Amino acid sequence: MQIDIKTCCRYLGTAEDILILCHRSPDGDTLGSGFGLSYALQSIGKRVRVLCSDPLPDKFSNFYPTEPQEEFEPKYIVAVDVADTKLLGVNLAHYADRVDLCIDHHISNTGYAAALLLDAKAAACAEIIYEVISAMGLPLDLRIATALYTGIATDTGCFRYPSTTARTHQVAARLIEAEVDNGAINTALFETKSHGRLNLEKLVMNGLTFYYDNRCALLVLSREMMAQSGAAEEDVDGISALPRQIEGVQVAAVLRESETGSYKVSLRTAAGVNASRICEELGGGGHKAAAGCMVRGPVQEAVDRLLTSIAAELERVAQC
Amino acid sequence: MQIDIKTCCRYLGTAEDILILCHRSPDGDTLGSGFGLSYALQSIGKRVRVLCSDPLPDKFSNFYPTEPQEEFEPKYIVAVDVADTKLLGVNLAHYADRVDLCIDHHISNTGYAAALLLDAKAAACAEIIYEVISAMGLPLDLRIATALYTGIATDTGCFRYPSTTARTHQVAARLIEAEVDNGAINTALFETKSHGRLNLEKLVMNGLTFYYDNRCALLVLSREMMAQSGAAEEDVDGISALPRQIEGVQVAAVLRESETGSYKVSLRTAAGVNASRICEELGGGGHKAAAGCMVRGPVQEAVDRLLTSIAAELERVAQC
Repeated sequence: MQIDIKTCCRYLGTAEDILILCHRSPDGDTLGSGFGLSYALQSIGKRVRVLCSDPLPDKFSNFYPTEPQEEFEPKYIVAVDVADTKLLGVNLAHYADRVDLCIDHHISNTGYAAALLLDAKAAACAEIIYEVISAMGLPLDLRIATALYTGIATDTGCFRYPSTTARTHQVAARLIEAEVDNGAINTALFETKSHGRLNLEKLVMNGLTFYYDNRCALLVLSREMMAQSGAAEEDVDGISALPRQIEGVQVAAVLRESETGSYKVSLRTAAGVNASRICEELGGGGHKAAAGCMVRGPVQEAVDRLLTSIAAELERVAQC
Repeated sequence: MQIDIKTCCRYLGTAEDILILCHRSPDGDTLGSGFGLSYALQSIGKRVRVLCSDPLPDKFSNFYPTEPQEEFEPKYIVAVDVADTKLLGVNLAHYADRVDLCIDHHISNTGYAAALLLDAKAAACAEIIYEVISAMGLPLDLRIATALYTGIATDTGCFRYPSTTARTHQVAARLIEAEVDNGAINTALFETKSHGRLNLEKLVMNGLTFYYDNRCALLVLSREMMAQSGAAEEDVDGISALPRQIEGVQVAAVLRESETGSYKVSLRTAAGVNASRICEELGGGGHKAAAGCMVRGPVQEAVDRLLTSIAAELERVAQC
């Protein structure tokens, strides 16, 4: 059942022994939301614990507790930034049917929780958590503000994405007033590359190919490149964006090799070029500007099949 | 003479036939400040013209006028985001002694103008322009807001840099309320790479070298690399940041080849390593965290001399 922020505050206000669940492969938003909320509720004497199926990345150690959290039998279970119980991950899967409250900003939320506070216009779940904390009248200390700022910065690409609204900036302003060290957080989040990431970027740069008068850019991300570079899974997202960032590119394709040797194609297109049509011809689908499909290897055959389908769409566009 | 915002508003309110000067090699902040102010003053019937010594980059064409600006003999001259008259550039140098008002956020401003509105805490000059426009009670239309948002996003690296304050975010919120298309602006500013930039990144990635257990990263930017890549001068800034973004790097050096075949060294260091001491040994200087010097070529000799000085400092640090 969807609830409003006032009801959410009432539920949290009366809840005791609260367990907060984050999604697997945790990012700054799920952890920032989880720990931000937990510290706020602890400040009024509640027992609260945050759990995640996967280890917490070092780069968020500026806000998660280094000492072990108190263990207790939870009486109230909250999921934050978790759109689907599948995303709880193996170690938290047993909580899937027991979530009392979910706070989320994904329009795709499956409504698995007994109560759902959903705000799909929020750029980050942490933006909603800020509002919940404010509505509950809880004080904003530096640790809470650091957690929430990290969440918002993560999910907005540091206020770059179109999801960033006036409200997002207003919340950021309030968090900086609470003395968040925004410069240091952003350096850690956006200006620090691991050697693995650097190695992968190098391989990717050298492997990037252009077709059809540079209107199409194509990137193959093989398992060998991943192994050779030592890059982590979290490094892939930023790197996959490369082909679509290049001036004049109308069709940007990333072919990621799967464990079976097939290639998962992610396609992004500029206005007027239909990504979905290209992928449908190969058994996939999606939206006009972003679509996907699977193509069989070996790699040259996969590339050729994809290029044939891209060429057909560019031909159609040229005839319009 | 330094003036406050109220005095600035009075001067602008009574001024007629206003010429606004931007700095050479124009960026989003000087142009956003210039055109934002010009549109606001035009909205109350003033004749205003914006000039820049260099051509205006295409990526700002979403806010500068495509039709030619009205020509007139200026009665009042304003410089925006121009810290020193040298930065006016050759085509505007003849105005150097005639600037009535300068609005700027550079602490290094030389005070060349008859009146100076300086706010060194502003993350962008456009942030001050927003305050001036607000204080004058002028309406904020979409074109003004687009210009000012572009200025702020440019100078803060899209709200990433430590210069970004709560006020910066509050102003951004107001500009988005004025319906700025922040997503599209940021895509153009931060997510678009020219082929020249891409080529240069590739050369740079392959040429990046590490020393002293990866504590030192060194990048040579030769004139040949610039020519071969087709990169523009504006592409260099982002690329020069690369060595210091790598995890664990304590000394990041960029050696840029000058026209005379010498190398201009820009050094950034992590806390505890003194950049200034390294550069002083080579006849340069600067601050603890950022310093510079010139070293003679050929390149291998320049690198060796620099490395010797870096090694000495790392040795000193190790002994502490």
